[in-house]
This record gives sequence, C-alpha cells and structure tokens, in this order.
Amino acid sequence: MTTIAFIGLGHMGLPMARNLLKAGFNLRVFDLLQAAVEDLAKDGAQAASSALDAVQDADVVVSMLPASRHVEGLYLGDNGLLAVLKPGSLVLECSTIAPESARKVHQAAATHGIELLDAPVSGGTAGAAAGTLTFMIGGAATTLEKARAIFEAMGKNIFHAGPDGAGQVAKVCNNQVLAVQMIATAEAMAMGVANGLEPGVLAEIMRQSSGGNWTLEKYNPWPGVMENAPASKGYSGGFMAELMTKDLGLAQEAAQASGSSTPMGALALQLYRLLLKQGKGKQDFSVVQQLFID
Amino acid sequence: MTTIAFIGLGHMGLPMARNLLKAGFNLRVFDLLQAAVEDLAKDGAQAASSALDAVQDADVVVSMLPASRHVEGLYLGDNGLLAVLKPGSLVLECSTIAPESARKVHQAAATHGIELLDAPVSGGTAGAAAGTLTFMIGGAATTLEKARAIFEAMGKNIFHAGPDGAGQVAKVCNNQVLAVQMIATAEAMAMGVANGLEPGVLAEIMRQSSGGNWTLEKYNPWPGVMENAPASKGYSGGFMAELMTKDLGLAQEAAQASGSSTPMGALALQLYRLLLKQGKGKQDFSVVQQLFID
Amino acid sequence: MTTIAFIGLGHMGLPMARNLLKAGFNLRVFDLLQAAVEDLAKDGAQAASSALDAVQDADVVVSMLPASRHVEGLYLGDNGLLAVLKPGSLVLECSTIAPESARKVHQAAATHGIELLDAPVSGGTAGAAAGTLTFMIGGAATTLEKARAIFEAMGKNIFHAGPDGAGQVAKVCNNQVLAVQMIATAEAMAMGVANGLEPGVLAEIMRQSSGGNWTLEKYNPWPGVMENAPASKGYSGGFMAELMTKDLGLAQEAAQASGSSTPMGALALQLYRLLLKQGKGKQDFSVVQQLFID
Amino acid sequence: MTTIAFIGLGHMGLPMARNLLKAGFNLRVFDLLQAAVEDLAKDGAQAASSALDAVQDADVVVSMLPASRHVEGLYLGDNGLLAVLKPGSLVLECSTIAPESARKVHQAAATHGIELLDAPVSGGTAGAAAGTLTFMIGGAATTLEKARAIFEAMGKNIFHAGPDGAGQVAKVCNNQVLAVQMIATAEAMAMGVANGLEPGVLAEIMRQSSGGNWTLEKYNPWPGVMENAPASKGYSGGFMAELMTKDLGLAQEAAQASGSSTPMGALALQLYRLLLKQGKGKQDFSVVQQLFID
Repeated sequence: MTTIAFIGLGHMGLPMARNLLKAGFNLRVFDLLQAAVEDLAKDGAQAASSALDAVQDADVVVSMLPASRHVEGLYLGDNGLLAVLKPGSLVLECSTIAPESARKVHQAAATHGIELLDAPVSGGTAGAAAGTLTFMIGGAATTLEKARAIFEAMGKNIFHAGPDGAGQVAKVCNNQVLAVQMIATAEAMAMGVANGLEPGVLAEIMRQSSGGNWTLEKYNPWPGVMENAPASKGYSGGFMAELMTKDLGLAQEAAQASGSSTPMGALALQLYRLLLKQGKGKQDFSVVQQLFID
Repeated sequence: MTTIAFIGLGHMGLPMARNLLKAGFNLRVFDLLQAAVEDLAKDGAQAASSALDAVQDADVVVSMLPASRHVEGLYLGDNGLLAVLKPGSLVLECSTIAPESARKVHQAAATHGIELLDAPVSGGTAGAAAGTLTFMIGGAATTLEKARAIFEAMGKNIFHAGPDGAGQVAKVCNNQVLAVQMIATAEAMAMGVANGLEPGVLAEIMRQSSGGNWTLEKYNPWPGVMENAPASKGYSGGFMAELMTKDLGLAQEAAQASGSSTPMGALALQLYRLLLKQGKGKQDFSVVQQLFID
Repeated sequence: MTTIAFIGLGHMGLPMARNLLKAGFNLRVFDLLQAAVEDLAKDGAQAASSALDAVQDADVVVSMLPASRHVEGLYLGDNGLLAVLKPGSLVLECSTIAPESARKVHQAAATHGIELLDAPVSGGTAGAAAGTLTFMIGGAATTLEKARAIFEAMGKNIFHAGPDGAGQVAKVCNNQVLAVQMIATAEAMAMGVANGLEPGVLAEIMRQSSGGNWTLEKYNPWPGVMENAPASKGYSGGFMAELMTKDLGLAQEAAQASGSSTPMGALALQLYRLLLKQGKGKQDFSVVQQLFID
Repeated sequence: MTTIAFIGLGHMGLPMARNLLKAGFNLRVFDLLQAAVEDLAKDGAQAASSALDAVQDADVVVSMLPASRHVEGLYLGDNGLLAVLKPGSLVLECSTIAPESARKVHQAAATHGIELLDAPVSGGTAGAAAGTLTFMIGGAATTLEKARAIFEAMGKNIFHAGPDGAGQVAKVCNNQVLAVQMIATAEAMAMGVANGLEPGVLAEIMRQSSGGNWTLEKYNPWPGVMENAPASKGYSGGFMAELMTKDLGLAQEAAQASGSSTPMGALALQLYRLLLKQGKGKQDFSVVQQLFID
C-alpha cells in the first residue's frame, strides 16, 4: 500500500490531502500550523512533527508550498528532503514556483536517484475541494504514469506539459493569459456600460462571440452578471489578487529568462500591483473591475 | 413580397446579399464596383444604377459600407436616402462605424418616420458566406422583430444589444476583447515555446484551462497548431489586421466619448499599428504572432 | 491704435487679457461669466455684451476657449464671427483643440479673407499671469510677424510650428511627452524609495543624469522634494489632471488621424483616466505620483 | 603610492583604466581577452595573468563586468577575491548589476573586513574615454571619501546614492526614465512629422518646453536633427539597445523585489525586446525610433 507524505496544508494543500485520504492512501502530513495537521489527523492521517518525520518510510512526497524559496528550502541542501529520501522515491511538487527554481530541484533530485515532477495546479480552492483540479506537469512521461492515480485522486485534467520545469511554464503562460483576459473583459464591460449597454446583455453577446473567454464563461467580473461568481459576492472567495500578482511576477521571470516580449502580460502585472496598493490584494482577482468604474 | 435594396457589395456585403437571394427575397443591389452588381444580377438580383435607384419601391434597405463617413454620406443630407425613403421603411445598417455616427443616423431616421437598426456583424467572410454571422443590434426591439427573418437569412446569432447605437458599442467591445486575447495568446505561445514547450501541447493546456478563449478554440495564431486557421495558411484569409486596427480605433473613440480607461485595448491598438507599419495590414490579424518571434 | 477683442476669460484667458491691457492695447472683452468681464472693465477694458459685440471695430480677435466645439461654435456658420469680421482682420486662436478642428477654422477664415493663427500655449496659469507663456503657432509666417507684438505681450517663447494646425500638433506632441515623463518620473521615484533611496537624493541624481527632464527640473511629483512644486502643496495649483487628460485625448485623435503608434502616450491617457475615476481630476497632474504609493 | 587592480577591460573598462593610468596610479590589469591587457601594458600597466594575480598587493580593486553572475563569480565563494584580499582593502564595483546581487557582495565584503562600494556609471563609452562618467554610489559615505580621487580620475559627477546597493537602484531608476523618455520622444516625433511638422522644428519646440528631456537635449532619435547623435550616423556608436534592454530587465527585478508598479518602465522593456527580435540589439538604443516609422 502506497504511503504518501504531504507537506504544506494551506488553503489548497488541505483539501488536496483530504482527497488523497478519501481515495484510500496512507497519509503522513506536516505543516508549520499545527491546526491543519490535527484537522487531517481526525480524518485518519498520521500527524508528523516535521517534514523529515513525515517522509519516514514514504513512497511518495507531495508538497504544496507558497513560493520558490520554500520549495528550495525543503528539498535542497544537506538537510533537504532529497538527501534523505530513499532512492526510487517519487516527488510530486505541486507549488507554483519559478520554472528556473523547478529545474534546479529537478536536477538535484536526479543526482539522488529520485523521480520528481513539477505539477502546479489550477482550479482554485473550489477545485481543490471538489477534486477537479487541473495539473500541468513537467518531467518524464513514465514518471507521470506512475503518479497518475495520485493525481486523479485530486484532479480531473492531468496534462503532461513537457520536460523538467514545463509544468511551471505552462502554468505561468496560462495564468498570464487569464489575467489579461480578465482585465480586457473588465475594461470592455465598463466601457460598454458607460456607453449605455446593460451589463448582462453585453456579457452574453461577448460570451457567445469571438470575444468569448473563460472569464465570460465562468467568472464575470461585473457584480450581478453571474450569481455565483466572486464579483456577485463582494469579490470574496475565488483566487486572491495577490496570488495572481505573484503568478504574473513568475511569468515575467520566465519572460526575462527567454528574452520574450509580453506587453499584455507585463501591463497586467503593473495593473494588479496598482490594485494591491489600493489594499485589494486579499479580494478575488476579478476585483480589477473596480479600477475601471467611478 | 418584401423588396430589399442592398447597398455595398464588398467582401462581406456580396455573400450577405447572396444569402438574401437564396432565401427568396426580391433584391435590388448597388455598389460603386459594377462587377459585384453584375455578379448578383446573374443570380437573380435587379441591378441598380445608383443607391437612389436601388431604393425605389424598396420596403427595406440593407447597407454594408466601409466607414462612418460613407454611411453618413449615404443616408444624411438633402440628397441622402433618408430624405427619399417612404415613411415606414426599414433600414438595416450593418456597417461597423462609430457609435456616435450610428446615433446621428438613428436620429435623422426618426425625424423622417423611418425605422432603423444599427446591426454590425461578426463572423468574417466565412460567416457571411455560410450565413452564420452574428448580428449585434441597436434600436427598438419591435423593429428588430419586423426584421428578424431578414437577419436570419444572413446570420445565426441575432442579439438585441440595446437602444440606438448599442449594436456598434457591443461590436467594438467584443472586438477589443478579441484583439487583446489574440495578442495575449500570441505572446504566451511565444514565451512558452521559448521556454521549451511544444506549441500544440501548450495551446491545448490553455484551451482547456482558465486561459481558454475564442482564439485558442478556433483560431490559434501559431502556425501549424490548427490546420484550418489562417496561421497555418501563411496568415491569409480571415480578418485583416488593418480591419482589426480600424475596429480598435472605433473602440478608442467610444472610450474617449465616455472617458473610459482601457489600458489593454489601447495597447492592442498601438501594437496593431506597429504591425501595419511593418506592411502586414492585409494579412490575417493573428499575424500579430510574428511580433513575438525572432 | 490696435483694438483687440478678447473672448474667453477663464483661468488662462483672464491673466492673458490683463497682460494685453498692461501693454497698452485697446481691449474689448467678453465671457459668459459676467464677473470676469467686470473684473477687466475695472482695469480699463471695454465690457462687451456678446462675442459679436466684442468684435465690433476690432482689428484683432484673441480667443481662449475650453474645447473644439466651443471654437467651432464661435467662428463657424452663418452666425459665426468669421462671417462678420471685416476682411483683413487677424484672429489669434489660442485654445487647445484638435488639429483637425483647427484646420477647419483655418479654411473657413481663408474663404472670408481673414488671417488666422492657431496658437495654443503652454506654461499654465502661472505663466499666463507672468506673461511668460510659450506659444506654438500654426499658420502663415507673415501673419505671425503681424501678430508678434501681441504674442510678446503675453508670452516669452513664440514658436512658429508650421502650417495651419501645426501649433495644435506641436502642443499635443509636447504635452504627450510631458505626461509620459511625469509618469515615468513618478514610478521611478516610487521604485527608488521603495528600494531604500532618499527621494531628494534620487531626484537630484536623475535630474543631472540622462534621466533628466522638465519634471525633474521644475516640477518633481514627490512631496517635499521641491518646495514650490504642486506636489509639496497637496497637489494644488498647477495644471489639473483633467486638463492633461483632455490633451492626451487630443493627442490620440491626432494619432488616429495619421495612424501613428504611440504606446507610451496611449498608456499615459489610460492611467490619467484611472486617476480621474479616483476623483483626482481637479488636482495638479503630478498627483499621478499617488497611483504608485501605498 | 596606491596600487589598483582593474578587472574587466571591455568597451567601458578599458578607457576607465586608461584614465587611472593617466592620473598616475599604479595599475595591475586583467581581462579574459589578452589583447586588452597587452594594450594597457604598453601604456604602463602591469599585465596580470588572472584576477587573483591582479589583486596581489593591491590596495584597491576596481571591477567592470557584464552581469550579476560574473560579479558574484569574481568575488564570492572560497576562491573569490573577497577571501584573498587583505583586510582594509577597498573594492569599487562599477558593473551594472541587480541591486540584490550588489547587496549580497556587500554583505560578504563586510564579513571579510573589506570596504566595498557599488558604483555603476552612466555616460557611455564616450564618457568613459573623456573621463566624464557619472558614478552612482552605494555604501558608506566614509568609504566614498577614501575613494573619491579614484572616481574623479574617471568621472565628473560623483553621487552618493545611499547605503549598500543604492548605486544600482539609482542607476536602474535613471535608465528606466531614460528609456521611457527616449520612446516617448520617438513616438511624438513620428506623430508630429506624420501630421505635417518639420522634425527639427518640433524637436526644438519640445526641447525648450515642458516636454524637454535629456534625449531632446543631447540625443535626438530622429535622423538629421542632431548632427552628432547616433541617429544621424545610422544609429551606430552610443549605447546599444541590448544593453538598455538588460538595464530595463534589472529595473524590473528591482520592481519585483519591492512590488512597485512601473507601467511605463515595463512597457519600455517589452518594446525594446520587440526591437531585439528585429535584429537591432547592436544598434544605438535611439533606434527605437524605427518602430514608429513606416
């Protein structure tokens, strides 16, 4: 029976770990916040006292951490997990981090004979709870096949993006397009309404036409257009503007690495930073709509 | 039996008129280019020698012209069509023009007791030929109902956008979002490929994820990703970059009228103008991809 | 002795007219606001009851109005001033309006045998009061020479920009550069301070280096760096953000007319519109600094 | 008598070192390219066979290297110079690198009891040859005083920007403003000319007005406006577009570190990357003018 060490039980990690429990995996869990650990222990996970403790006898490690520095801190160096995991272990690194950082961890894993995948997710906390996340995965296809059952316990779309780091690259590309089209939708909604259109009518026309995109389909930023969208609930829930800002920053790091010109993505990042300066970082990222309304 | 005068037989107008013929309407047609007139005459239309000649005894006028000044020139003034059409006539003005210009023509129509709709389309020449255009319509809902059969002979989605001019506003909002997401997709494709991803894989991941949009669904700008997209045919066919530039200019006129801030739309216009300066105005608008590749 | 009719006695027009009085010209003045007219009458001007009244027996007309529509309304049409001025009159149109609008008024003047110059100013209310305005002038060089003494009574730098409308073109080019470098300076100041520099030190280094520009020289947007700058007086005085927004809109009209790509200017306009949405339109345009500070 | 080790004899380093020789300093020089070393040896410098060899008995080290990784490689680690320099040595690190990287080297220097300044320059190869560079210096003011004579042998303006890393921050702020105003000037020149103005007249009006900036004063991007500007010499000489692109990338790293919103600077970077994709990276950075002309 597969034993999984799960490290990082935040807004995303906690529901993901719970889905692994439901699917019947042995789970050893650790987080710096004791409450999350105890929460899962009630559901049948084994509480670990440290990351090192969590990976004892684990066949697989799943990690879900805030940023590159946490991931590098967990895995690299003389006291990092890669130095203590048994050869042949499988590591599914699900954090959203810089592609360059992901590749660094990949290389270290290879030198220790450990198979690792960078596997950032999209779908938000709702997708994490429902087990319908999208995984964008970088690393060997054969490794992905070994891990498929684990991913499928947490998500619905399991994409092999390419070699080491490709999961992170796909994630930042996707989220950059998402941010740009959220802003494009928001500014068009505001312009249309200011020129006399009903927001619901305009939203529906664009949704069904060549302006159609995911935000018009699932996540309209104008309050009241979609009953269940964050915009209709005071921009609460969903995906925080500060997290989108983080992802747009990672995208710019990738653009810098390749010398890519991304005028729309770069501008989206600057507009989200303006929004954060207005104290809206904790609201859903569709709150960018408010920049464009009096 | 309804007699329709159709004025303006360009790339869009010609196939639209042909679909009206197929649907059994009496058609009187005029264009400054004699060839187009003769072409339709072979199919059973009555060739008119002028716009004034075309509207003799017409119940309905449909016009499809390049720009605001042509539309104002056709309808307004002492020699304009509005001065000669019989009261109760129906005018379906399908050109893409400035909302302000559309409202001016609406007002003049009202003073002559003529019902007019601004009804710009989307769907391109392919949609015009197939009779699957989208109409975005401004004016009275009751007028739209009278004209519905005519629209349905030419298109598939018939949207009532709102009051006078609202069709034009919806059109420029939609096309502004379209242009922005085309550029966002193109820059993300280039960045992803420059960072090691296969274009087809990246396109598919984004299409199915929150980055999904109409360009990823129908019209990928990277050559070879979609067999039938203009990008795979040397950026030929489709919707010319110079026409998208025109529409983005109309969007900025609307934004100026309402004082709306549209950072993404404004930047899209500037990038398309750069493209035109490189001599690419006659290529499909997805040619913006080439800005981002060495 | 030259009699000048001065029409439009707002924040700029009033001090400009006063300088003409001081220089010894006969002045007939009109404004829709009676108070301004009476104010100048006390100083020796003749109060007129209408624009038509003001231009009776005038050799020269100077106008200073808010926007294109006011200028066209004043001069054009059967009741416009151009129809009543005596041939050989001289018109100095000092408003900041669209180049296209200026050219329309030029053409009408020519048909009436009247010499006209478009002569927008820069220098703000302080320059108007001190008589140190800059005039950017479009029209015949010979006409400019006839008017030179009048311009010199109101300003210091008298530039002949080129043919009809060229004054307006020069003005919008200049103000577009000004707006962009104000924003560039503001964002660099904020970034430098956020990275540990003293604002005064950073401002001084850039001022003396290749980043030097007029805003660093005269008008630093960071509060306290320059004692007399609007930034140090709560962004009061100076040149209102809403007027800069207007000028940036005129610049975009000129860019549209010529198909010019102006990514920086277009972005500046969008950022100023964001600022107006935050209710800061009446503050000095250096208030854009506040977008970039928490 | 002070002995200076000079490491990095590229386009900038070579003339800087020559000015130190002229000022009478003992100079030990090293570069990976033997030709530059021999060149200076003819002028009286001592040729060193390695960086380690160069710093033997040196009181002061001056380094001028291409990027952060070279600087970190030279100074840090067990084999880095900081490990071998005698306590009390003075290091003047003149490369343009990331502020974060500069601070890392500062910290390492402090642990070895070595005084270090980050001292990036502006002024280009012409300024380096003429000894008129601007130095923007981060570190202790007392250290700067010890080094002043050395800086004055190479430059004219010696600014103390602030604490460790502040020199780099000032440099990227300045160069970001410079890039933005170069582009703003170029797009305004193109728009003005497209609307009928003479380039020289427009340039002069803006130079003397509120649009005035360093590029209008010294470095007009329109060919023929300034006889000695790179624009009038086929965009040769001057400061290469690819180096400006590098500096704008460093600025974005600084903005990322502080979460600063820099819409103009970010857009400037994207436009310079477009230019590099067109193969113009080796031309002077004013070649951005060509983006805006047919």
